[in-house]
Parts: sequence; structure tokens; C-alpha cells
Amino acid sequence: MADPVGIPLLDVLGGRRCDPVPVWFMRQAGRYLPEYRRLRRSLGSFLDLVYTPEAAAEATLQPVRRFALDAAILFSDILVIPHALGQEVRFAEGEGPRLEPIRDRGDLSRLVPARAEEALQPIYETVRLARRALPDGVALIGFAGGPWTVATYMAAGRGGDEQCAAKLWAYRDPEGFRALLGLIERASIDYLLGQIRAGAQVIQIFESWAANLPESWFEDLVIAPTRRIVDALAKAAPGVPVIGFARGAGALLPRYARASGVGAVSLDTAIPVSFADETLPQGLAVQGNLDPLLVCAGGATMKAEAGRILDGLRRRPHVFNLGHGFVPATPLGHVEELIDFVRGKGGTSE
Amino acid sequence: MADPVGIPLLDVLGGRRCDPVPVWFMRQAGRYLPEYRRLRRSLGSFLDLVYTPEAAAEATLQPVRRFALDAAILFSDILVIPHALGQEVRFAEGEGPRLEPIRDRGDLSRLVPARAEEALQPIYETVRLARRALPDGVALIGFAGGPWTVATYMAAGRGGDEQCAAKLWAYRDPEGFRALLGLIERASIDYLLGQIRAGAQVIQIFESWAANLPESWFEDLVIAPTRRIVDALAKAAPGVPVIGFARGAGALLPRYARASGVGAVSLDTAIPVSFADETLPQGLAVQGNLDPLLVCAGGATMKAEAGRILDGLRRRPHVFNLGHGFVPATPLGHVEELIDFVRGKGGTSE
Repeated sequence: MADPVGIPLLDVLGGRRCDPVPVWFMRQAGRYLPEYRRLRRSLGSFLDLVYTPEAAAEATLQPVRRFALDAAILFSDILVIPHALGQEVRFAEGEGPRLEPIRDRGDLSRLVPARAEEALQPIYETVRLARRALPDGVALIGFAGGPWTVATYMAAGRGGDEQCAAKLWAYRDPEGFRALLGLIERASIDYLLGQIRAGAQVIQIFESWAANLPESWFEDLVIAPTRRIVDALAKAAPGVPVIGFARGAGALLPRYARASGVGAVSLDTAIPVSFADETLPQGLAVQGNLDPLLVCAGGATMKAEAGRILDGLRRRPHVFNLGHGFVPATPLGHVEELIDFVRGKGGTSE
Repeated sequence: MADPVGIPLLDVLGGRRCDPVPVWFMRQAGRYLPEYRRLRRSLGSFLDLVYTPEAAAEATLQPVRRFALDAAILFSDILVIPHALGQEVRFAEGEGPRLEPIRDRGDLSRLVPARAEEALQPIYETVRLARRALPDGVALIGFAGGPWTVATYMAAGRGGDEQCAAKLWAYRDPEGFRALLGLIERASIDYLLGQIRAGAQVIQIFESWAANLPESWFEDLVIAPTRRIVDALAKAAPGVPVIGFARGAGALLPRYARASGVGAVSLDTAIPVSFADETLPQGLAVQGNLDPLLVCAGGATMKAEAGRILDGLRRRPHVFNLGHGFVPATPLGHVEELIDFVRGKGGTSE
């Protein structure tokens, strides 16, 4: 266990239990905030926002100004890696991201790894601006997509669809597909180290499409690349905790937690907290699980489920969070109520 | 264990191990078959096909004529229940089903349970025609969607999207939502009994959207309604095995297998067979798991994964199947190769 540093999120990720538990939320910067919607309207496109450091830092800071949160998370997108590698990426209003697909080994020549670092410089500047503006006790989280998840978007040109294009490529030409994963992996290592050098104190790896993989392929396409990223970060930036979020890992979560090397895991909504507590390594920090739609619904149901999570993880280092990101329709009052509940529940006055 | 009846699928579902293991495939009737595409073109709409007994029976029989399968599954759709209850359902080419959403308790009055049985008569006729045409050793499987899955389509007007509309309704108005589930449940019981009386020898319940539910809601919305259906069938039609397919149940699968009352479970692709074998009740029959995209890819990779599944489940009653349905691009030669491999692998000549 690391020595306490007095920043709740870092202490918990270092293996220490804090009461009340620290709180942050996936997609806490975003469309449910009126100030975000205003900011978004003032810029041309979503990618303009991501690559304009002052604006992206502002989006990063907005939720921390409004709510008593223990962390800010860099406002960016997992698709900046394909974009920095030279793949065309656009965000069409109301239908999610669209990319010019990289369909097979032959298409890999369209990627230009050498240009990535320069393309990502504005994001490091966002991290510097955000870190400078944050209070000392509020941690700044950097992130990247897991290589498998990023590859599913690169191969299909979009998300969803059970990751058909990426899977078919991997099944038909495992070597060629590993070359794609390797490119993403190396760019992600540089990208995360750049974020850390600029002031990110925690890294989260979003493996949003970890569901639906046969176990041996989960090992090869999810666990192995994550392990290599974690090892590279541990070598070049020791002491920066890495949270792994393998969404949809289901029964494979314990294996992911043990073999990927991540220092903490984020639970999606479908993982029973009892299963997590029984099967994850003792002392491993855990966050997540609350269905974001419960915050949309609010009230006693939301609190009952939040209470169940707090109780179920009371024997571990625990960071309160969601099982996935906030939806745009989430009422701000419900977020406040939830934070108050979490803070009150773990308080010494109880 | 039931006495052997000499029909491999029924013997395995009765708790007996058969070698070679029986084989059938989810979505074995469908667009990957040229004869299906011809049949489909000859009718006006997808629902016309479903409600025309001669055509639907033909679609049911097509895969059994072409391949050495141990079962036929009724050609129909899980959305015939909302349709029979009076909800408007249409299948738009290339974009999946669209329904006029039932958004809340007030909308329930639009449903007319009394008309369901009459609306479903053509489907019973399909079952009768198919059973009459099938060889004795080939079992006929009937099916319905799980009430939760059917409700997600009814509430959202479509599939996908993490089942937002249904979840929000359930979280905000649990009683109203339970009333919807109850309507679906009762209609499904009558529907499945109708199929059994017409000649279905096995029932499968497709809970295609079982992912992403918090555990207590999974109990309430997935397990409990399934249990009531299974109990009602056991009472009115004892001895007809029920296979439960809770796709995306992940770590909750053992609980589903124990508490829902189903006599066999179908594994999606993400469930490691070792996890299934270790956590499911001893002697429970298991099917599924092979990624349908592996059959699309074919070759040594497909066989390696099929072999892994056969090995992993060799100590149980096992039915070979997929983790989800065939995709339209599946080459027919790969299906044949797979069946030969499964039959050869379990053969006594090895």
C-alpha cells in the first residue's frame, strides 16, 4: 500500500480505504450540463472542442465547479488515437462517430504513426491547463481507449454491431490484426505518457467493447495489449495508478483484473458487486456499477441501489462511480442528491 | 434423468450425454440460405412470411433439408407477442423492427390481450405443418422472447440502446412496468402452450437483452418472469424441456440457471466454458457459445474454437450451438464443415 498523500482518489487507488468514499462519474463532463451545451455550441465541431485546449480544459473543469467531486477527467475522446494516426474521423450530429474504415492489413499503410505525437500536443496542453486550475485535493484523470475497442471503431468505421468487422479481421488474419493493435498500443503508450507528463495523476483505460469475445480471444485482444500498456507506463511513469474498465467482461472480469496488471477495476452495471468482491484480488480498488439510468430516474430507487453498492464494497478500497457514462437527460438535482447520499452514507457521523 | 427416447436433442435435454453431441444453430433458418432469400422475396413483408403457415413451415424446414441437424426451430419472431397484443409492429428493410412505443402505464390500455390467441393461430398451424414434415429423430423447437426482452422493444419501439426506455420506466414506475411484464408473460405462456399442443417438443426462451441490468433488477425483470413461465409450462405441459438463453447475463448466469427453473442453458460467446462448467448445476444440459462470426470466418480458427467448446463441456449433457444467431454472410460450406467436425469429434471411431 502506498503512503497516504491526502488526495482521496489517489489514496484509494493506492490501496487505502477512505470514508466517505471518493466520487467521480464517467461522462461527468458532457451534454447533461447546460454550461457544456453552451460551450459546445460556441465551437464548430466536437473535434474542434477536443483540440482547443482552453475549451477542452473548460469542459474538464465544469463538473468540478458545480459538484463536490474528487476528480476531474480530461475532456477528450478515445478516437483521437485513430485521428492522430491519420484516419479520417468525424462526429455526425446525433448518430455518433464515423471513420473511414481500415478494413485489412493492406489498409494499414494509410496510417502514419510518426505524425501522432504532434497531433496530440493540444491535448497535453488541455491537461496542463486543467491541472493548473484544479484544487490540490481533486485528482486529474487522463485516459485512452483500450486497443481492442479503438480497433473495433477503426475497422467498422463506427461503434456497435457486436464488433463484427474487427472480429472477422482478427479471425481471418490474426497477424494482420495484431499489427493494427500494435500500432494503437504504441500510440496509446506515448499518448498516456504525454498526459502524465502534462499533469494527469491517474489513467483510465476504457475498454468499452469488451463484451462478446470468446475467452481465448479476450486474452489475446483485450488482456495482452492492456498488460503491455500498463507495463510500459509502470516503467516510464511509476506510481501512476491505472484503472481498467472492461465493459461487458462479465465472467471474465476476474481474469482481466489479475492478468492485465491494472491497479483498479471499474465495474459495469451488470457485474454483481458480490461477484466482484468475492472474485477480485483482495485489496484491489474497485469503482463503478451504478446504472447511469438510475441517476436519470432519481429518487429512492437511485439511493437504494447506491446504498447496495456502498455496502457491498465496504471491505475494499472503493471509489463511487457509474457503470457507464451519464446520459444527456440526467437531471442535475439527481446528481447532487446522489453525491450527498454517498458522502453522508460513509460519514463518521452515522 | 428421463428415460431415453432415441431423439438425441431430447435425450440430452433430459440430462443424458450423447456422443456425438446433437447440433442445431440459432438463426439456422434465415438470410444466409439462398432458398430462404428466394422464399422471402416471394412474400410481401417479413410478417407476411411469419403469418403464412406454409411459407413459415418451409423456412423452418429449409436448414434441416440442407444440413444434418438434430432440430428445427420454428421460423417466427419474438415480436409476434406485441403484435398479437395489438401493438403496431413493422420490419423496415435493413434497419430492424420498429414498433409504436408503449411508453408508460397509460399506454397499456392500447394493448388488447383478448385478441392475442386468435392472432397467433397461424403460428400454431406452422408448427403443425413443420412437425408433420420432419423426420422422427429431428426435434422441433418452439420459442418466445423473454418478457424483459420483449418489453424493451415494446417500450423503445426498437432494439438496442442499452434498453433505456424500458429501464427508465421500470426505475420510475416499477408497478406499471410489472403490469406490462405480466401482460407479456401471460400471453407468452398461452403462446408457448399453443406451440406445444401443435407439436413443439422443446421450448427456448430468448432473453436477448439480459445484459446491463443491476443484479436486483435482473432478479425481478428477468429471472422472476421466466420462472413463472417455466412453472406454468411444467404444470400444463410436463416433460417439455425449456432452454433459457439469457444473452449477456455474464456473472449472473449461474443465478439465472438456478433460479429461473429452466432445464438447460444456452451460453453466449462471452461466457467462458470453464466458468459455465464450474458454476452451473451438475448435470444441467448446456448449449451454445461458438461465436457466429467464427463460422463466417471458417477454417482452422473455427474448428479450434469448436474443439475447445466440445472439450470444455465433455463432462455434461451438451448440445452444440452458437453464442448468437448466424450472420447473413455465413458461407454454407463453413456450416457443413462445422457440422462434420462436431460429428467427427464425438464419434466412437476416434
